Amino acid sequence: MADITQSNEATQAPPGPRSNPAWDQLVARFEDLRNFGSAIALLRWDQEVMMPPEGNAARASSMATLEAVFHSRLTDPSLGDLLDELGSDDSLDQDQAASVRVLRREHDKAVRVPEDLVRELATTRGVAYQRWVEARAADDFSLFEPHLKHIVELKKQEADAIGWEDERYDALLDDYEPGVTTKEVEAIFSELVAGLTPLVERVVDAADARPEWLSQPFDEALQQSFCASLAESLGFNVVGGRLDQSPHPFTMTVGPGDVRQTIKTEPNSLLPSIYAAMHETGHALYEQGIPKEMINLPIGQVPSLGMHESQSRLWENLVGRSRAYTDFLLPRIKERFPQVGMVSPEDFYRAVNWPQRSLIRIHADELTYNLHIALRLELELALFRDELEVSDLPGAWNDAMQRHLGVRPDSDANGVLQDVHWSSALHGYFSTYTLGNLYAAALFNKATEDLGDLEGDMRKGDVSRLLEWLRTHVHSQGYRYPASELAQRVLGEPLSSAPLLKYLTAKYEALFA
Amino acid sequence: MADITQSNEATQAPPGPRSNPAWDQLVARFEDLRNFGSAIALLRWDQEVMMPPEGNAARASSMATLEAVFHSRLTDPSLGDLLDELGSDDSLDQDQAASVRVLRREHDKAVRVPEDLVRELATTRGVAYQRWVEARAADDFSLFEPHLKHIVELKKQEADAIGWEDERYDALLDDYEPGVTTKEVEAIFSELVAGLTPLVERVVDAADARPEWLSQPFDEALQQSFCASLAESLGFNVVGGRLDQSPHPFTMTVGPGDVRQTIKTEPNSLLPSIYAAMHETGHALYEQGIPKEMINLPIGQVPSLGMHESQSRLWENLVGRSRAYTDFLLPRIKERFPQVGMVSPEDFYRAVNWPQRSLIRIHADELTYNLHIALRLELELALFRDELEVSDLPGAWNDAMQRHLGVRPDSDANGVLQDVHWSSALHGYFSTYTLGNLYAAALFNKATEDLGDLEGDMRKGDVSRLLEWLRTHVHSQGYRYPASELAQRVLGEPLSSAPLLKYLTAKYEALFA
Repeated sequence: MADITQSNEATQAPPGPRSNPAWDQLVARFEDLRNFGSAIALLRWDQEVMMPPEGNAARASSMATLEAVFHSRLTDPSLGDLLDELGSDDSLDQDQAASVRVLRREHDKAVRVPEDLVRELATTRGVAYQRWVEARAADDFSLFEPHLKHIVELKKQEADAIGWEDERYDALLDDYEPGVTTKEVEAIFSELVAGLTPLVERVVDAADARPEWLSQPFDEALQQSFCASLAESLGFNVVGGRLDQSPHPFTMTVGPGDVRQTIKTEPNSLLPSIYAAMHETGHALYEQGIPKEMINLPIGQVPSLGMHESQSRLWENLVGRSRAYTDFLLPRIKERFPQVGMVSPEDFYRAVNWPQRSLIRIHADELTYNLHIALRLELELALFRDELEVSDLPGAWNDAMQRHLGVRPDSDANGVLQDVHWSSALHGYFSTYTLGNLYAAALFNKATEDLGDLEGDMRKGDVSRLLEWLRTHVHSQGYRYPASELAQRVLGEPLSSAPLLKYLTAKYEALFA
Repeated sequence: MADITQSNEATQAPPGPRSNPAWDQLVARFEDLRNFGSAIALLRWDQEVMMPPEGNAARASSMATLEAVFHSRLTDPSLGDLLDELGSDDSLDQDQAASVRVLRREHDKAVRVPEDLVRELATTRGVAYQRWVEARAADDFSLFEPHLKHIVELKKQEADAIGWEDERYDALLDDYEPGVTTKEVEAIFSELVAGLTPLVERVVDAADARPEWLSQPFDEALQQSFCASLAESLGFNVVGGRLDQSPHPFTMTVGPGDVRQTIKTEPNSLLPSIYAAMHETGHALYEQGIPKEMINLPIGQVPSLGMHESQSRLWENLVGRSRAYTDFLLPRIKERFPQVGMVSPEDFYRAVNWPQRSLIRIHADELTYNLHIALRLELELALFRDELEVSDLPGAWNDAMQRHLGVRPDSDANGVLQDVHWSSALHGYFSTYTLGNLYAAALFNKATEDLGDLEGDMRKGDVSRLLEWLRTHVHSQGYRYPASELAQRVLGEPLSSAPLLKYLTAKYEALFA
């Protein structure tokens, strides 16, 4: 009987909305855009991971050509007309309507920024990045200062061209965290900092010196293969992705069925590559979790960088640095890297969570990390509110470090020059790291409520229930809703600092206070 | 004094032709085309070497999108106008005029083939390739036959659209060997076959069974690193290129400064990877030898596949399978692969030149290889002269194998289905392999005349004088002239079968007769 039913169904018209030529056109145009986007992504990935050094100049030229075509197709007035037509088409289903909104938003933003400004930003960014590399190497902010000044000026013009209601910084945030306002971000950071500061005071200085076994030679090929099997054990689909090495770890979707993550092994350190793999696997699982039937639509993407980061942080920290998962991990590490020696589960757990007043964000532990972000947000806000000059940034940076972390950089290289972001005109980006931490804690909390205790799973290294929950509630939703709305739907309440503060307090008080 | 002269020169206007806006426009358009070409090349390279399997469908879609844009820019009528204008501009220098001719040719050919036919060929090729894979696996030509029939029909239409004077096959040859006619190719093959056939008779059956030491386990990672240093020792610039693994070895220029070759290691065989590396390094040295100042012009490319193949064959065979170079190679191989054992230099030299009546072209030795090509040329000519039906191909193939090589395939998989080319609509391609062998022997001959005996160099593994000669006479010429004209200029006479026949006769008579 089942066979007959199926056979009847197969002869019927496929389910779904009625034929809609405008919609079909939009889908075709989106595929076209995505195909260009895929090629650009591959040119970038290859540049970081594979390209021989002498290919650099030609690669830059290729990318510029493809980006120009992408931009001109995205801003094509006839795409605007199509979006207008579909914007008032009541016959669209929810996903179709959401897709129109997503593409509308991208089209409108691209249209609003004048081509001259786009080009000037691209050129200035290219030069500024080179000057930043030199300035950091020479520990001399003055080499970078005029270029950063120029970038800030152009970003202000860009923000004004895009438009904003409350304040200019809203337009910058909107590039990475659509729909979230400066006011909301400031409020949540203020709660978070107020909660973290006394906790850091109580905890950080109670930790001893960093365990010595962490620094010793670890074979890099073995690290690579260990990380590859770790990623796979977490659910990374290797038939639809790759794991390579690059100077800075990242994850990039080249196209449907092609999600690539990278790590960076170090000769005398094991934990950085392992936790980079867990972090990037979090990103990759999200990308691989976008449903196949959604991937050819504008909603077949992650809704914000903060939400993306929630997944990397959840796997890296909430899972990877938990007592239960480290208990699972340690024997596997010892099996492959016997030089780790007789480290106890408790000592290993402490080692992967070692808190310190670090000068460098990317070396920061889970506890102090968000304070590094808080100071960057403050400085960006001051710059874009015209309350701070670029020339005063180094001093302002050092003062903020003193205030938030109780340490003062010994150099600009270890201070204001440490991050690549500003040289690449990525103002507005930093706070998504903390939004990611906040979302991660809240989502993990909710998953635990729904699934019951996950410790037993993690102790066995079986994270499939958690992944399934994330697939259902987060990954499969794509960009149906803005990130904050998605969070509200999943969590049943708006995002707050409470889950992260509660989690960090419990963890670090038990560990080091 | 030298410093002052240089400083004066630096303040003068750069040398070169007067400003010419039409020429500048052409250069900009060529850069644009090349940038698309680079992206397409990378998409292809990555598909063969890096892409995870599930990325395949999206990759095909991306490539189709980029190829369509490339095609529409190449056929743009305003490019035709620009080429018209520059075609009658007497102020252009030789390289500029040659560049206009090269791009004119590509533009005209692309314009002549109707877009519908381009699309139909692309689709048919995609399907035919899949059916060919299945047909070969199932050893069943009938699965492939209708698709090949369709492809041959479309190739006839394509040839007629492009146009031809003497016969249709000229238009197919012209895709790979511009300016060479069927008549010329047939004449040279007829001489070559007449010379090879009695030589094969005398030599092949005199060889014993293949040496057993050739088949045993060889660590594949060691093979890879051995091949990488071999390529580098021949002159491959690793800062401007890569050497990876792929199912079928190939070389591809992604862009200026980015030349990528691949090899394929096998677990139980050493020589295939070593000779693939020498072959592909020959291609790569040619690509890397195109001068920097030419690379941004249409003449900054290799003039034909035959000339390209001349370089791969020269390094693989004339160098790599010479007694002098194998004497250099063997101790290095023994050092890394001691399992080779006590093989003598003479035995090693014989082993890398072992002749056999193989059924399979890609396993053929230097002596019999061109007979495999001769039969393919005969069959293609018969097809395109309407003297042979696709359905009669398997029988015609087997008869031709019997006639040329004295063996009859036991199956279509080992016969007419063995090569990928026809499924990919590459009719006209095969004879460039033999043209490559002919050019290689003639060029090596001429280099020896000019440089004196090269055996001493090869015995030391120092091939720099030979490479320098090739750089000067071949590589640095780019596409200034069609391949046959370049050969005439370098050799002082037209290409003939004499140098190759003389070389093979001397070598194989001494070895096995």
